[in-house]
Amino acid sequence: MANLKDLAEHLGLSQATVSRALNGYSTVNAETRRKVQEAARLLNYRPNTSARRLATGRAGAFGLVLEQSDNLLNDPHFVDFLSGFTQELAAQDLDVVLTSAEGLATYRRYASTSKVDGFVISAPKVKDARVAALTEMAFPFVVHGQTEADAPYAFYDIANERAFLDATRLLLNLGHRRIALINGPADTMFARQRLDGFHKALAEKGLPPDPRLIHHATMSEDEGYALTRQLFAGSEAPTAILCSSTLQTLGLTRRLREEGLEMGRDVSVISHDDGLSSMKTENFSVPLTVTRAPIREAGQEIARMLVALGNGASVETQQKTAPVELIVRASTSAAPQE
Amino acid sequence: MANLKDLAEHLGLSQATVSRALNGYSTVNAETRRKVQEAARLLNYRPNTSARRLATGRAGAFGLVLEQSDNLLNDPHFVDFLSGFTQELAAQDLDVVLTSAEGLATYRRYASTSKVDGFVISAPKVKDARVAALTEMAFPFVVHGQTEADAPYAFYDIANERAFLDATRLLLNLGHRRIALINGPADTMFARQRLDGFHKALAEKGLPPDPRLIHHATMSEDEGYALTRQLFAGSEAPTAILCSSTLQTLGLTRRLREEGLEMGRDVSVISHDDGLSSMKTENFSVPLTVTRAPIREAGQEIARMLVALGNGASVETQQKTAPVELIVRASTSAAPQE
Repeated sequence: MANLKDLAEHLGLSQATVSRALNGYSTVNAETRRKVQEAARLLNYRPNTSARRLATGRAGAFGLVLEQSDNLLNDPHFVDFLSGFTQELAAQDLDVVLTSAEGLATYRRYASTSKVDGFVISAPKVKDARVAALTEMAFPFVVHGQTEADAPYAFYDIANERAFLDATRLLLNLGHRRIALINGPADTMFARQRLDGFHKALAEKGLPPDPRLIHHATMSEDEGYALTRQLFAGSEAPTAILCSSTLQTLGLTRRLREEGLEMGRDVSVISHDDGLSSMKTENFSVPLTVTRAPIREAGQEIARMLVALGNGASVETQQKTAPVELIVRASTSAAPQE
Repeated sequence: MANLKDLAEHLGLSQATVSRALNGYSTVNAETRRKVQEAARLLNYRPNTSARRLATGRAGAFGLVLEQSDNLLNDPHFVDFLSGFTQELAAQDLDVVLTSAEGLATYRRYASTSKVDGFVISAPKVKDARVAALTEMAFPFVVHGQTEADAPYAFYDIANERAFLDATRLLLNLGHRRIALINGPADTMFARQRLDGFHKALAEKGLPPDPRLIHHATMSEDEGYALTRQLFAGSEAPTAILCSSTLQTLGLTRRLREEGLEMGRDVSVISHDDGLSSMKTENFSVPLTVTRAPIREAGQEIARMLVALGNGASVETQQKTAPVELIVRASTSAAPQE
C-alpha cells in the first residue's frame, strides 16, 4: 500500500501536486491528473484521512454534542434519530462525530479546529444559546426543532402546535372538558409549541386552562407514572390525557391500571408517537390514539440539510416543518356521562 | 487567531519545529518548547485538528460501525452504552466516530486511512469476522462481549453463562420444571453463553432441554409478545420464563395479561436487565426478578480499554468479565401444584 510520498516519488512530482491532482483541483492540468490517478490505482494508494482533510479543508464529518444535563441519551427516541442521521451520512462517505459536554465551549472548539463541518442542535431550548453562538461564528448547523433567534437559521421541525391543537380538538369533540397535558420539559421549544396548540383548542371552546392539569416533565416511564398518580389524587381528576411521548404513556398506562381505570373507557388518552422501532403504540394493551411523526425521518432529513449547507445552500432554503398524522385507535372515546 | 504559519513566522522557526514543540516532542529542546508555548498563548493560536492529527499520527477518535443488518439501533440498550462510552472519551478530549455500514470494508478503510485510532466491536457473533480481520491488520479494537478467535483480543463481557445458570437454578429450586427461554439472536455470542448456562442448570437436575421451550429472537417488545403467545398456545405451557431483555419482557407482560395469567403467581419470570435509565424493571406492574449488569458501565470501561491500547497496553491486559447480580423481586414464586 503506497502513501502520498511513495506516489510522488514514483511520479517525480511534488506531494502537493499529487495531492491536488487526487482531489481533482483544476489548478493541475487534466493530463497530470489522469497520470496521477492511474498511478494511485496501480500502486494501491490509500489517502491518509488527516492529510486529505488538511488539503480539502473539510472534516468530512458532522458533529452532535450530547449535553450531559438534558437526558437526550436516556431517551430511546434519540436512537431512532441517530440511526437515520448516521445511515444517511454514511451513504455519502461522511461520519458522525459524537462527544459529550456542557455549554458552548465544545461547539466553539470543534468549529475553530475544523473537527467537524457542521452541527446538529438537538432538543433546542425556547431561546437557544447554541444557535446564537454558531450564527455569530457563521458555522453551519441545523436545528432539530425551532428556537427564538434574531437571524434566519436552518431547521427541521414537526408541526407540534398543529398536532396538539388537532388532538385536543378531538378530545373536546368527544365531550371531554377536563383534559390533562403531560408535556416535555418546560424549557424546550417543542413543549412550548404543544402547549400553545393545547391552549388554542381550549380557547376555541371558551375553556380556561386549568394549571392543575398541565405538567412538564422529562420523557420517561417514571415521570408518566408519577404525574398520572398526581392527576388522579385530587377531586378534579381528568377524563382525558394528552401525553408527549410513548415512554410517558407507558408509565401512565401502569398507573391507570393501578387506579382500576380502563383506558379508552374511563379515561381517554392520546400519545405523541415518534415511530419508535422498539416499542409500537398500536401494541399497547389498548391500542393508542396518537399524533405520529417518525423521528428517524428527522435524522435523515437533517443529514441532507447539513450536506446542502456544506455545498453552499443558504439557510433560508433549509427550513422544513414536517406534518404530523393524527391516528385514532381504541384509547379515545366519548367522555363518561357525569 | 493565529495559525501554525503565523506562529512559525513570528518565532522565526520552521512550522515542523513549532508543531513538534506544541505537541511536546522531546526532539525539540525545553527552552524552544517554552518559547513556542508562550507565543502560542500570546497570539491566541488554535491548532487545526487535521494538522495536529497529521503531526501526531493520531485521529483522536474511536469508531463504532453500526451494522445495518443487526438491529443495534433499534435497541434502547445501545443508547445507554453509547452514553457511557461517549462521556468517558469526552473527558479525555477524544471523540466517537459513528458510521453505518455492512461488512468489513468500512473497518478496513477507516483503519487504513487513520480516521480512527481503534474500534468497538458491538454485538459480536459466535465467530466474528470483524475480530479476525482487525487482528490480522493489527489494528486496535475492544469487543463488547466475546467471540471465538485464534489469537487473544481485548474484550469487556458480562458473566452471561453464570447469570443464566444462577437464574435457572433459582427457578428449579422453586420447583419449576417446564422453564422456557426467550433468548437473543441465535448467532450472537451472548445468546450462546446464556443458553449454555440454562442447559447446565437443567443438566444438574438431570432434565433434558425441551426445544419447544427455547426460542431466539431480537430484543423487541413485539418478539417478546409473539413468543409468549406461542409458548402458551400448546398443551405443554411453561410455568416459568427466562427472558433476555427488558423489552422482550415488556411484550411478555402484555401477552400474559391477555392470557389472564398473573406474573409471579401463575407464571414466574426472570428478565435480564441492562440497567436502562428509561425503563426500570422494579417499575413493572409486578416488580421483576432480574439478572442485572448496567450496560452504561460497559461503555465506560471499553472507552478506558481503547485508550489503554492506544497507549501501548497489550491485549492480554485488557480483558474483563464483569459479574452479574441476581436480584429477586415479585415476579418469581414457587411452581404451581399440578
